[in-house]
Amino acid sequence: MNESPSAVAASSTSFDSETCPLTIGVDFGGTSVKIGVVRGAEIIGEIARIPTQRYDGPDDLLDAIVEEVATMRERHPEIGAIGIGVPGAVDFERGMTYNLTNVPGWSNVPLRDMISEKTGLPTVLENDANCAAYAEFKCGAGRGLRNVVVVTLGTGVGGGLILNGELFRGSQYAAGEIGQMSIDYNGVDGPYGNWGALERYVGNQQITQIGVTRFTEAGREVKDDICSPQSLAEAAYSGDEIAHQVWHVVADYLGTALTSIVYLLNPDAIIIGGGVAHAGDILFDPLKARIKAMLSDEFFEALQIIPATFGNTAGIIGSAALADDLVE
Amino acid sequence: MNESPSAVAASSTSFDSETCPLTIGVDFGGTSVKIGVVRGAEIIGEIARIPTQRYDGPDDLLDAIVEEVATMRERHPEIGAIGIGVPGAVDFERGMTYNLTNVPGWSNVPLRDMISEKTGLPTVLENDANCAAYAEFKCGAGRGLRNVVVVTLGTGVGGGLILNGELFRGSQYAAGEIGQMSIDYNGVDGPYGNWGALERYVGNQQITQIGVTRFTEAGREVKDDICSPQSLAEAAYSGDEIAHQVWHVVADYLGTALTSIVYLLNPDAIIIGGGVAHAGDILFDPLKARIKAMLSDEFFEALQIIPATFGNTAGIIGSAALADDLVE
Repeated sequence: MNESPSAVAASSTSFDSETCPLTIGVDFGGTSVKIGVVRGAEIIGEIARIPTQRYDGPDDLLDAIVEEVATMRERHPEIGAIGIGVPGAVDFERGMTYNLTNVPGWSNVPLRDMISEKTGLPTVLENDANCAAYAEFKCGAGRGLRNVVVVTLGTGVGGGLILNGELFRGSQYAAGEIGQMSIDYNGVDGPYGNWGALERYVGNQQITQIGVTRFTEAGREVKDDICSPQSLAEAAYSGDEIAHQVWHVVADYLGTALTSIVYLLNPDAIIIGGGVAHAGDILFDPLKARIKAMLSDEFFEALQIIPATFGNTAGIIGSAALADDLVE
Repeated sequence: MNESPSAVAASSTSFDSETCPLTIGVDFGGTSVKIGVVRGAEIIGEIARIPTQRYDGPDDLLDAIVEEVATMRERHPEIGAIGIGVPGAVDFERGMTYNLTNVPGWSNVPLRDMISEKTGLPTVLENDANCAAYAEFKCGAGRGLRNVVVVTLGTGVGGGLILNGELFRGSQYAAGEIGQMSIDYNGVDGPYGNWGALERYVGNQQITQIGVTRFTEAGREVKDDICSPQSLAEAAYSGDEIAHQVWHVVADYLGTALTSIVYLLNPDAIIIGGGVAHAGDILFDPLKARIKAMLSDEFFEALQIIPATFGNTAGIIGSAALADDLVE
C-alpha cells in the first residue's frame, strides 16, 4: 500500500505508531462537523470543518462528510475505519441517532450504516461524551487504568464511564449522565423534572450567576463579563477573595456528586475536562478538599482526581479510538 | 459418587437441577454464621447456625464452620465449592477480610484460603451486599437481565451492582455503597463526613424519626413502637394518612438517589430488598411516582423497579451462587 509523504512522516513520530491503526474521527457538533485523521493520540494534518447549519438535512451533510473522507483516504490510503461522535443519545447496536442536540432533522437516522455503505469502511457511532471518555482512557489521562469516570464541564455537564476496561453504555446506551444526577432532593428543577440536577448548579451560566450574586452581595460592581467562568478563574488567580469563594461553592456542588459516584463505582480516577476545567487549581484544590472531606482517608488516597488531557479534540480522538477497535 | 437419600430427593425437585452444581453458602453475620447447602435458588435441608459471639477470634470460629461443612459433605458428597459472604469490605483478589462490622478480631484475615485449605474445596469470599445482589441476578428478581442495581434497606442502606452481566466490584472492591451517596450537598453528616448520605435519611431509625416527628406535629400520641417501619407500614395500609405521608417522604429521599443511579448507569432494573422493602406498595407506589417524575417517560418505561426475591436467605444463596462459578 502506498503511503503519502505526510503519512509516513507522521507515523514515524506518532504515538503508538507500531500498534495503532490509522482511522478517521468525526466530531459531529451543532456548529460544525470536525473530521480528522488520527493515529493514537495524534491528529495527522489539518482538521476539516464542515458547517453543520449550512445543510438542510442528513443527506446533503452526509455527502459533504463522505467527500471529505474520500479526500483524506487519497492522502492516507491505509485508513482502516471511521468513528463518529454525535451530540445526543444513540442506539449503539443499530448505529442510529435518536436526536441530536441543536441539529434538527437528525431523529432516528441510521448514520453508522449510511457512512459505512458510502465509504466501504467499518464505522462506529457513539455519543460524544462517551467518545471523550474513551479518548482519555485509551490515549489520555486515564491510560492504563481500569475504572475511570470522565466528567465534562461546560454549558451543561456530561460524562462517560470506563468500567472494567470497557466503555460502559448501559441498557439503552444512555449511561454517564452525570449532569442529571441530583445533589439536592429538594433542589432546583432539572431539565427532566429531576430536582437538584448537578448541571443546574455548575453549568457555565450557573457559575456566572453564583459570581454575580456573590459580587453583588459584597457590594462590588458587576460589569461586562467579569463573572464568566474564565474571568472568575483569572480573578481568583489574581487573589480576588470573592472569586475564590465562587470556586469553593462550585467545588462543593461538584464534589458532592463526584463523591456519590465514587461510593457507587469505586473508580481509579475521576478525570475532569471541558471549558470550566481550565480553571485549574483554583477549582481542583477545593474540589479535592471537598471529596477528601466526604471519603474515608484510605479511599481518598486510592483515588486520582485529574484534569483531562484532551480539550476540543477529545471528540475526534475518542471516536477514532473507537474505530481502532474495528481494525485491530 | 454416592448421594444421600435427602440429596437425591432434593435434587429431583430443585431449581435448575440439571445444570446447577451443589455448593455451600456461608452468610457470616455479627450475630450468627448461617450455613446452607444450596442448589440454584433452593436451600436443601436445614440452615446451620453458629453463634458468632461465642468464639473469641477467627481460629475457633473457623474450626466450627469447617466442622459444619464436613457434616454437610457427609450428607452431600457432591458439594463442589464454598462461598462466603461477610459484613464488610473484602480484598476479593486476595480473599481477605478488611474489617467485619460488629465482629472484632477479623481484620485482615485470609479467610478464603483458610477455609479452602481446611476443606480442600474451591472457595470464594465476597461482601454480603454483593452476595445479595448476585443472588437476585442469578436466581431472583434480576434473572436474565444485564444491568441490575440491588439496594438493601434496613438499619443501613447497602447495595450491589450487576453490570454487563457481571458483579461489578470496583477498583478496591468497594463499589455499590448506595447508602453513602448524597441526596443533599448541604445535608446531615454521614458516617464518613459525607453530607447528605442516603442512609441517614432512610435507615430504620430515620424512618422511625420521620414518623415520630409527623405524628407529633399532627398532635397524635406517639407510644410504643407505633413508628417502627413495620408499624408505619401497617398503619398506612389501614388508611392512616400521617403514616402514608411518612412513606412519601421516604420515597422522595430514596427515589432521588435511585434516579441519580439511573442517570449514571442506565440499568434494566432496580431491585429493592431488606426489611424496609416489606412495606410493599405503600413504599413502592410513591417511590415509582418520584422516579417517574425525575426521568423522561421513555427511560422510565424501560426501567423495572421491583422487590427482591430473597429475604434473610439472600446471603446464603448469593454466596453459594458465586461458588457455583468455581464449579461450572
